[in-house]
Parts: sequence; C-alpha cells; structure tokens
Amino acid sequence: MKPRTPEITSASRPLTYEVEALNENGEAVATPIAGEHPLTLYIDKREVVTLMTLGQAPEALVIGYLRNQRLVRGIEDIAAVQVDWETDSVAVTTRKGVKGLAKKMQKRTVTTGCGQGTVFGDLMEEIESIRLREDVTLEEETLYALLDAVRRHETIYKAAGAVHGCALATNEPAASRIITFIEDVGRHNAVDTIAGQMWLEDIDGSDKIFYTTGRLTSEMVIKAAQMRIPFLVSRSGLTKMGHDIASRIGITMIGRAVNKRYLLYTGKQRFVKAALRTMVA
Amino acid sequence: MKPRTPEITSASRPLTYEVEALNENGEAVATPIAGEHPLTLYIDKREVVTLMTLGQAPEALVIGYLRNQRLVRGIEDIAAVQVDWETDSVAVTTRKGVKGLAKKMQKRTVTTGCGQGTVFGDLMEEIESIRLREDVTLEEETLYALLDAVRRHETIYKAAGAVHGCALATNEPAASRIITFIEDVGRHNAVDTIAGQMWLEDIDGSDKIFYTTGRLTSEMVIKAAQMRIPFLVSRSGLTKMGHDIASRIGITMIGRAVNKRYLLYTGKQRFVKAALRTMVA
Repeated sequence: MKPRTPEITSASRPLTYEVEALNENGEAVATPIAGEHPLTLYIDKREVVTLMTLGQAPEALVIGYLRNQRLVRGIEDIAAVQVDWETDSVAVTTRKGVKGLAKKMQKRTVTTGCGQGTVFGDLMEEIESIRLREDVTLEEETLYALLDAVRRHETIYKAAGAVHGCALATNEPAASRIITFIEDVGRHNAVDTIAGQMWLEDIDGSDKIFYTTGRLTSEMVIKAAQMRIPFLVSRSGLTKMGHDIASRIGITMIGRAVNKRYLLYTGKQRFVKAALRTMVA
Repeated sequence: MKPRTPEITSASRPLTYEVEALNENGEAVATPIAGEHPLTLYIDKREVVTLMTLGQAPEALVIGYLRNQRLVRGIEDIAAVQVDWETDSVAVTTRKGVKGLAKKMQKRTVTTGCGQGTVFGDLMEEIESIRLREDVTLEEETLYALLDAVRRHETIYKAAGAVHGCALATNEPAASRIITFIEDVGRHNAVDTIAGQMWLEDIDGSDKIFYTTGRLTSEMVIKAAQMRIPFLVSRSGLTKMGHDIASRIGITMIGRAVNKRYLLYTGKQRFVKAALRTMVA
C-alpha cells in the first residue's frame, strides 16, 4: 500500500534570470544565470536551517532533506510541506513531532562539496548496516544508453551553468530511461530532491541508476547507498573517501563517464560488459 | 607591525592516491584520485565542526575558517593550531576564548555549493558595511596574464580531478603573479585556506585578484568581499544571488574567464579595456 503522502504546495521558482554583461569585445550581452534563493526551513514552527536553492522542486527538496538528515522515518510522518516565497520559508508540519530535533541539528559536519552538515559519525555507523542488492546487474550498453539520455536532456546547466545535476534512471537491458532529472545550485540539494521525489512517488531505488554531474565524494556515495541504489554513475572523478566508502558498501561506482568512456571503480561484480554478454550468448 | 602569529604545525597530507579502475576497454588502469580527510576542529578543547578536506594546508584552512566564521577577530587571538592526523583532529588554542561559541555555531545556513553553515542573516548585515577600494583598476591585459598563469599552474585537478581551486594573485600593469594557489575537495575550504594564509603572511587583499575555478555563488562573493578583495574572477558562471550581492557590494566580478574570453558582470568602473588604454595613451 502506498504510504499516506503529505499536503504540499507546488511552488517552483523561475530557474533562470537574465543579466547584462560585457564580453571581451566590449559588447553588452544578455546572459542567462541560474536562480539561487534562500529557503528557511521550519519544522513544527521551529527554525532549523536555511537552504540555498535553485527552487526547481522545493517541496521534494525539503522532504528529501528531512529524509537524508534522518529527521523523519518515513513520508507518513510528514503532514504538510508549505513553501512561501514571499517570506522565503517552508513550513513543515509533522504528525508526531521530531524527537531530539535540537540535539540532531547541533552537531553537524561540514562535508565536502556541499555539506549539509550531516552528523558524520552517525552516518558512518548507518552505512555499515546497509546491504545493497546483489541480484541486479548493469550492462555496459545500459550505461551507454543512460549517458546518451543525459546528453540529450535539456538542462539549466546548458543555458546558464552554475548548477549541478542529478538523475534517477531505470536499468533495463541495453536501455535506460530518466525518471527524474533535478538541478540545483547546491549539489546535495539535487540529491535530496530526488530522495524526496522517491518518497512522494513511492519509487524503489534498489535496481535503479543514480547519475550525477558532480564529484563522487563521501557524502554522495553515502546518500546513494541510503537510497538503496546499487549503481552510481558520474561524469566527474572521485575522492579517496568516496572510494573507501564505496568499496566498503560494495556499491557499483563508475566515474568519468562521458559518451563511450568510463572508469569502473568498485562493485565490479554487478557490471556486465557487452563483450562478456556476447561470449555467454 | 606584523601581528603576533600562532604556533602552528605543518601537517599537510598526500594530495593524491592511486586506485585501480577498469576502463571501457576492460583494462585495469591505475588512476590518481584526490585525498579527502575528515578533520575535527576543537576550539579550546570544545568540539566545533568536522571539515572534509584535501589537507593541502590544514592549519591555514582552520585559521581561515575561524576568520570567515567570525569566531576570532584577528590572528593575534589565536595562540596555537595543532593538526594531528592520527586522530584526524585539529586543536585550536585561543588567547582569550571565543565569546558565545555555542550560540554562534547553533544557527547555520546550508549555503550553496559547499556551505560551511555561516549565519546568513549576520553575513548580509556585514556586507552592507563593506566598502571596497575604488582607487584600483584591473586591466584587460592583466586579466589575460592571470588566466595564462592559472592555465600553466600544475594542479591536483589536472592529475586527479574532483577538486576546486582558488588563487590569490597580484594586479600589476599587464601582469599578474599567483601568490598562492589552493585546491580542496570543498570549494569553500580553498577560499578559507587563502583567507588563513593572508592572515598568517599579513597580506592586504585590497588591490589583489581572487580567482576561483568554482561558481560565483552568494557565499563566494561574500567571502571575497570579507577579504576586501575588489576583483573576483571565475572560470565558471554565476548565480542570481551571487550577482545580486556583487551588484550591491560593487565588486568587480568576471565570469566564464578562459583564455581570451570573459564576461564582466559587475563593478565595471574598475575595469580598463586594452583598447581604451591605447586611446588614452
């Protein structure tokens, strides 16, 4: 049964704005820039944090933030999410309150890249308990299909730059469909928004592919694992701690993935190369 | 007189590591990846935050963090900065303690990109009082010299990717010299490290150029202004709030700057095009 979903607004912001700049020829050119808005989160009328966001899907962002910060256990704990851009605020109403909210928000880690201040020690404990599915595979042809879909996708990045993108995609034989593609000025906002959408639409991540334009840092790997997604693909490179954690969790992690090129770092047992498939056939 | 400087360790970490990956030809290749280490900051034995860092100049990072978070007023307030990688921690000893430390750390904003949780409201108040020098100019030829110097600079990014770089550079007629170039897995760590070095070496920023590979978000503009630097140059684009704040402060902000191309967004009064110089001469 689909869990009870919260009452939510649907208050996305204009994603790009135009400003005038002088180029190297001394010409005034209109240039599109990405939006960036403060959004202060109140949980049951208590101020928690201010997120800086593009504002593409602020309700899903906030739900994903609550999810990834472990402030709620399930979407059924959230009664309402109301975004009000006149006051740059979002009011979350929970059904039963958040236990130990003050304490949870007190000790935060400034994580690499776009740290949302998750409690690092707690996260590390949690990932020790995560088991990703081992009965799923990713074919090289599916990876190529995903990269092609991403390349064709119309993005804010192409228009205005200054944003990171994340996608959740299906994993089919030699095919991949983008379920959702979210961009944000903060990379972890994009991940959180996808986590929120997965809850809102009751999507199971355990056979899906998570794609990011950003680097594979520790927090990115942890967030993918928290969503139970076994396949993590990035256009960019990775950091040592991202690699360490990916090895420990056994996530299938692929970096520097553009067109027909990639590097498979960890979780190699789930990856099926086209050549091998042909040999088996 | 140069202010009293703290006792500091000099504990940088190896910046890259090698891991094995499988490439698209099925070959195992050794690939360099950027380091990423947790570094837990204790101020006068009180745990404050955990930073995730490449570890290039951890002492300067911590000093710059204290500076940019407004936890100390000047470098003379810091007695010692001792990094210990065996425990992934750094102990800061202040001369007179930090007033209201708990309160200062309580309310943080998750800023775009690599938020270090600065209190947003306080920052906005502060920037209203910042006045950047108006008696300095940046020549187009100097900008081109800077971009050339950056291009020639050996970087972790070229070797391993997954890091952002920032540089502080001189502003001379048709010339620019990189004073310091810092890379980190967290972009704001790189900025903070430069802020720390400026304090350690008593460098005045008021005529310098700040270069970043990263996007020109609100926090990047604010941090440059806090260091009193009037020229902010980026290879990347900008966000709306970055533009709004840059306009208000009147900082000379240039984006998409690569080779002989750039876009001059704000603070145009300080920019001198080569063509205009020739006309004057």
